[in-house]
Amino acid sequence: MPMTNQPAVRRGRGRRPADEVRADVLRTVGEVLLAEGSADLTFERVARLSGVSKTTLYKWWPSKGALALDGYFHAVEPTLAFPETGDIRADLIAQLRAFARVMTETSGGKVLAELIGQSQTDPDLATAYRTLYSAERRRLAGERLQAAQRAGQIRAEVDVQVVVDQLWGAVYHRLLIPDEPVTDEFVLALVHNLLDGISGRS
Amino acid sequence: MPMTNQPAVRRGRGRRPADEVRADVLRTVGEVLLAEGSADLTFERVARLSGVSKTTLYKWWPSKGALALDGYFHAVEPTLAFPETGDIRADLIAQLRAFARVMTETSGGKVLAELIGQSQTDPDLATAYRTLYSAERRRLAGERLQAAQRAGQIRAEVDVQVVVDQLWGAVYHRLLIPDEPVTDEFVLALVHNLLDGISGRS
Repeated sequence: MPMTNQPAVRRGRGRRPADEVRADVLRTVGEVLLAEGSADLTFERVARLSGVSKTTLYKWWPSKGALALDGYFHAVEPTLAFPETGDIRADLIAQLRAFARVMTETSGGKVLAELIGQSQTDPDLATAYRTLYSAERRRLAGERLQAAQRAGQIRAEVDVQVVVDQLWGAVYHRLLIPDEPVTDEFVLALVHNLLDGISGRS
Repeated sequence: MPMTNQPAVRRGRGRRPADEVRADVLRTVGEVLLAEGSADLTFERVARLSGVSKTTLYKWWPSKGALALDGYFHAVEPTLAFPETGDIRADLIAQLRAFARVMTETSGGKVLAELIGQSQTDPDLATAYRTLYSAERRRLAGERLQAAQRAGQIRAEVDVQVVVDQLWGAVYHRLLIPDEPVTDEFVLALVHNLLDGISGRS
């Protein structure tokens, strides 16, 4: 492990706790992904940028896909946090707008689309995607939607995981098969359609 | 064109019209895709099975992806036709059930998922996907939804293309990122959620 004596790791106060080193690596990876995408993300480069040995990186993340997904999740976590103003309509619109911005205005959309794309023929990457990204995003959305159910704003019998597919899944659909654009009108229509229903006779 | 004398092409009544030959090729491709997927679909094999020269095949379809998408579209077109009973709820449920069955019970789901996957890094395939498959599926769904708008069953101000993302797009989301399964309960929930709305206070 030739790099453990480098400043980034020691900073004059001995070996840093693994959690702190790990968080540093994830921050580095997240910055690279959002700024430029995943094409030039390599273990070599992450080792150089973070001052952590490749051996350690491989111990924590068995593949580039796993490293990218973990870094990406942590990079977008604050931006994609669910507001809780008590108004589920306003909170869904705010969160979906933030999500749409990450997808269309940073390299995030391309990074995720390529990882989802590769995961169709790479079972290990598919597992990493679900474990390190999508299952946790589903859990967080589900929590906010269940709070709205307890507040009587969403009907109790609704399966909130289906709502995830009809809001965020609908955005992924336009990202992966770009027949139609992801616009602010689209985000608003998703929320209003689903909360109010589209039926002409209710 | 060494194969033009083969029985499949001539059948004793001279050169067949190009439309008929083309339809034969698409039928052959569709059968292979739904039965076994796209892994062993090659121009060589399609030429052999259909009795059409590779030169002709390449003239009509510039890539394996284009050939697969055109064959797939035609193979599923009858199954995915939109019923028009006059009841949009029943018709959407019937069509989405048929779609879910093709996706989960034939090789169709895997074929589409892999083509969508590859198209994230292959711009020509992405264009072929939209031109030969998704834009036309969107158009057909849009037509049925607009008929429902004219009948007063869907509100006139609803953008029917957003509905496409919230029904079929939601199914694609579960196919491409399989955190949750595509079940009959899921299909029913998609339609009821969207037609009736999920809000607790309407």
